[in-house]
Amino acid sequence: MPPKKKRPSAEFAVPGFKAAGIACGIKKNGKKDLALILSDGPASVAGLFTTNSVKAAPVLLDMKRVRKGVSRGVIINSGNANACTGKPGYEAAAAMATLAERASGAKKGSIMVASTGVIGVPFPIKKVEAGISSLVGSLSYSGMKSAAEAIMTTDAFMKKASAKVNINGRKVTIAGIAKGAGMICPDMATMLAFFATDAEIKAPALRKALKLAADASFNSIIVDNDTSTNDTVMAFANGCSGCGEIRPGTKEFAAFERALRSVSLDLAHMIVRDGEGATRFIEIDLKGAASVASARKAARTIAESFLVKTAFFGGDPNWGRILAALGRSGVRMREEKVDISLNGVQVVKKGLDTGREREAAKAMKEKEVSVSVALNIGRHSAKLWTSDLSFEYVRINSAYRT
Amino acid sequence: MPPKKKRPSAEFAVPGFKAAGIACGIKKNGKKDLALILSDGPASVAGLFTTNSVKAAPVLLDMKRVRKGVSRGVIINSGNANACTGKPGYEAAAAMATLAERASGAKKGSIMVASTGVIGVPFPIKKVEAGISSLVGSLSYSGMKSAAEAIMTTDAFMKKASAKVNINGRKVTIAGIAKGAGMICPDMATMLAFFATDAEIKAPALRKALKLAADASFNSIIVDNDTSTNDTVMAFANGCSGCGEIRPGTKEFAAFERALRSVSLDLAHMIVRDGEGATRFIEIDLKGAASVASARKAARTIAESFLVKTAFFGGDPNWGRILAALGRSGVRMREEKVDISLNGVQVVKKGLDTGREREAAKAMKEKEVSVSVALNIGRHSAKLWTSDLSFEYVRINSAYRT
Repeated sequence: MPPKKKRPSAEFAVPGFKAAGIACGIKKNGKKDLALILSDGPASVAGLFTTNSVKAAPVLLDMKRVRKGVSRGVIINSGNANACTGKPGYEAAAAMATLAERASGAKKGSIMVASTGVIGVPFPIKKVEAGISSLVGSLSYSGMKSAAEAIMTTDAFMKKASAKVNINGRKVTIAGIAKGAGMICPDMATMLAFFATDAEIKAPALRKALKLAADASFNSIIVDNDTSTNDTVMAFANGCSGCGEIRPGTKEFAAFERALRSVSLDLAHMIVRDGEGATRFIEIDLKGAASVASARKAARTIAESFLVKTAFFGGDPNWGRILAALGRSGVRMREEKVDISLNGVQVVKKGLDTGREREAAKAMKEKEVSVSVALNIGRHSAKLWTSDLSFEYVRINSAYRT
Repeated sequence: MPPKKKRPSAEFAVPGFKAAGIACGIKKNGKKDLALILSDGPASVAGLFTTNSVKAAPVLLDMKRVRKGVSRGVIINSGNANACTGKPGYEAAAAMATLAERASGAKKGSIMVASTGVIGVPFPIKKVEAGISSLVGSLSYSGMKSAAEAIMTTDAFMKKASAKVNINGRKVTIAGIAKGAGMICPDMATMLAFFATDAEIKAPALRKALKLAADASFNSIIVDNDTSTNDTVMAFANGCSGCGEIRPGTKEFAAFERALRSVSLDLAHMIVRDGEGATRFIEIDLKGAASVASARKAARTIAESFLVKTAFFGGDPNWGRILAALGRSGVRMREEKVDISLNGVQVVKKGLDTGREREAAKAMKEKEVSVSVALNIGRHSAKLWTSDLSFEYVRINSAYRT
């Protein structure tokens, strides 16, 4: 699926942030594979990392560094995940940061690292070393697009989004880049996302906003049921807008968080849409649950079902599979209260067939399918996004890595 | 995949049990769709039912009836699951039992019911009514094979197995039939299994043996991540062998349970092998876990991973996906202690690549793949069986139901 639409591109540069993307030879095909995002001065930093207990070396490094709350930026490579690489891998991640720090004149320990690509292969630190001057030499205030390109692996298209929000009369910019295309990932469904903003906000508040935004976006998409060793979401805020400090609990915080969430959601939806492997963009809108947790669990169980995903690929309004997934999810529900609609056509009313399947099959011919489920036992809801399970998914993911 | 091998067929008849399978017109293609297994006299009965909170009508009926601990047998239909059919569905299930009881002279409430097929479609009780005399008229002591045929839906081959065990000098027979082919199930991955034995054993002990056998077999196979509204495993023991009562905690019980487990395992493996959708039979052998529960959870997370399953379809010894699945499973583990072998070729030692991937790729060309994972932190283990995720799986499961 291509990205949904070309919106009039918001200005993508963020005051006080330079970026660059170059090819240093990690990818064998000569494509860009090394990126740097660098703030002119110290920036607040917040990060969210994979919950997988097998964590890549750069993730382990960043988890330590992010505690300081201050950073100058991040160096990112594609083509090698530096995961399952043991102690030499950790040393390589640290060396990569040091190379970026020295070349850019940043303080030791002030640059974060992220990697994506094949796992279990020794990290080619020599290639980063050879490319670092060129990378730093390419830094520019309009370089985020180039960085977005350099973090791609199997992504069919580049993922970038931005938003502006007025805070205390100042224009605050948030730009984000991401990589991820679970449906077509030959090695790991790694998801990386980096945000740069000129907002004035301290690290703990930035982390809070980032967590809220990520939960409603990156943590609400399901491309397959695997989490990667490298998943990383980071935000850098350098305060250049002079908007005054954004504190939690204020309307300024709410406005900032909303803008950050909208950029995150744009990027997350691009990840779902990416890949020859996905033919349909599916929204699961679950309502009437006893709690938010159970709403999310029920929606997730539907989104993760092999049988639901293959039915959607075939355009089959197979509500029995949805109902069975709900039953299997373990959340509180009563079959005789459940309503299900597919693209607005109600196929189940109070747990029973409405006889409108033919109509629903027609409505499901769309590339965008909305699955609306009402448990009708409580007042909590959740929204998740996913894609179907297609031939292409199997083809791409079964291809031997070469 | 075809069934593994033809073993010299053990005698399939069980003393005191008649069975039959006929076509009564529920299936549009004229194939057999109605089966009856009937003990000459009252038998102990035990049942295990789906954990899905959306339960089909016959499951709800059986869950009540099984409490009595005594039954004459079971009537089973294929072609219609009688699930999500509301009150009329429940009445139809009860009526189906009554028809079998009247026609065979069994006491009211003494016959169980099971159904498999499409869900959400009103149950065609008239067809059962029209066929019931013919069904009862066809009953014979060698009818189990015919019953096995009549419970098939999308199964590519019939599933039957049996074992004999010597208890107190008497020959005890256990015969089992099953249906299930998750990989090619157009509606639901329903699994049904029925055992008939002439062992002398009371219902609570029979249930205990059945639970142990099912946990090591039917509950240890993963074809997809869905459980059905109709899953049912039932055992009937009529005591005809005169072997003396088998009580829990005795060596007779252990011998009986072992024999029941071997029949269950044969049937469960047939289910994994069934279907054009499955090209490889995969055994996950997880060792060295901190507890049995975590061993099972880790093995299950590997078996359920879309990325692992597609890699296996492609014959790709992608140990990174296995390690990532382990990490995601949430069980206690340390990356640097994990060993992984694929068909005897060690690809991971202490969390690191052994450089034997090419060799492993060769070993994985086999139709049977053994994945051996050692967490090396405890003494508990688990074995699960699954199949790969192929083009055929997607094709069959995405085809619109017609």
